[in-house]
Amino acid sequence: MTTVALAPAFILVAPQMGENIGAAARVMANFGLTDLRLVAPRDGWPNPAAETMSAGALPGVVAATVFDTVEQAIADCGQVFATTARPREMEKPVLGASEAITRIRATPARTAILFGAERAGLPNEAVALCDAILSYPVNRAFASLNLAQAVALMAHGLAEAEASGPPPGFNDALDPPATREELIGMMEHFEAELDRAGFFFPEEKRAPIAQNLRNAFTRAGWTSQEVRTFRGAIKALALGRGKARVQREE
Amino acid sequence: MTTVALAPAFILVAPQMGENIGAAARVMANFGLTDLRLVAPRDGWPNPAAETMSAGALPGVVAATVFDTVEQAIADCGQVFATTARPREMEKPVLGASEAITRIRATPARTAILFGAERAGLPNEAVALCDAILSYPVNRAFASLNLAQAVALMAHGLAEAEASGPPPGFNDALDPPATREELIGMMEHFEAELDRAGFFFPEEKRAPIAQNLRNAFTRAGWTSQEVRTFRGAIKALALGRGKARVQREE
Repeated sequence: MTTVALAPAFILVAPQMGENIGAAARVMANFGLTDLRLVAPRDGWPNPAAETMSAGALPGVVAATVFDTVEQAIADCGQVFATTARPREMEKPVLGASEAITRIRATPARTAILFGAERAGLPNEAVALCDAILSYPVNRAFASLNLAQAVALMAHGLAEAEASGPPPGFNDALDPPATREELIGMMEHFEAELDRAGFFFPEEKRAPIAQNLRNAFTRAGWTSQEVRTFRGAIKALALGRGKARVQREE
Repeated sequence: MTTVALAPAFILVAPQMGENIGAAARVMANFGLTDLRLVAPRDGWPNPAAETMSAGALPGVVAATVFDTVEQAIADCGQVFATTARPREMEKPVLGASEAITRIRATPARTAILFGAERAGLPNEAVALCDAILSYPVNRAFASLNLAQAVALMAHGLAEAEASGPPPGFNDALDPPATREELIGMMEHFEAELDRAGFFFPEEKRAPIAQNLRNAFTRAGWTSQEVRTFRGAIKALALGRGKARVQREE
């Protein structure tokens, strides 16, 4: 099987300023990138301020697609990175731009790069769906990077790597990673069964516990085949539990 | 002699929009850089729009210094790069960001990086004073990079290189490069003598010929000692010519 890395999708999560969306689109076009995705942009879409700042990149050169949720926006992606400057209490690998770019070029699937809103950054639920955190070596005393600047650094890094030579050969013996839709489907399946089993107790603990599980799952780099296998296992366990209950009831 | 690379100066030549100056200052502060120089900013200085966009970087974190000319702004620098997307009819090495960063870290003197105005870019007279052209791998069909984005890419690249390890050791046996003030002084001295010798003829050819000479001189990587030697040689030639004329007049 021969596979190639696809150009990554840049996903702005709940962006506020149209100007920043436009500046992000402009610099994507500068470096030949076209897959811009917006999750719930504050001022709706299309946005005249974004078009003005894009210097012609919007709507013609860069295709902006709007999604309601992060899950939908990353559904077709096989690898997802979260850009964030804030340290997170999450067990995720933290990559610099160069390492992230190496991984993007070495992965036979589309990578999504998530960028948070101007003030709030990325919500933890979104970070929990990511394989790794992408962090720039900012001055801790002046760490707030403009959204479009954060986009620019990755766009340039990708183009520079592309200009410097072909990507490393993929290991064709490996299966490609599961899409994020498959992975999220697996986690939802697992959580639904855990709900039915009364695992998430008390209720207010549900969100943090589910998030910890999602962090652990996304670190594992599942293939599609592994996702199918695990879902089969969950199903078997659920059936077994049902049977056990039936047996107890008899 | 032990010498170290100094943090580079970022020089905006005739910038138009205060917003871009502010955004450039902000991203410099993000990556721990503080030496911002402005050559003849269109709207004067200080500029309230720049301060607003700087998110607190101006005036406290980044020190912006204003100069009338490029020559003054680069006087104390030992290496100068011109960022430009347009191909130039000049015999200069063209570097990508990574190569430029390697040179900055390997050079025991301050480097200046020149960024042109929003529409016009850098004038050829300024490029002629530079050792090399710094060019980003932009999409030729959408090449116009925002000024602050161009600054961001170098600021991040420098911080990333710094974070990844110490710079390569300097060759302490080498003399440091001449400052740009010394080099420009040498070229002006040479041109003045050429003027007196009637070399620049006809007058309208003066500027392009002088520029070609400056391009050739700046490529040579002069040390201070070499500048002094060459000025001595010019002086000797000029005296000799004067003597020859005197002799002819006798």
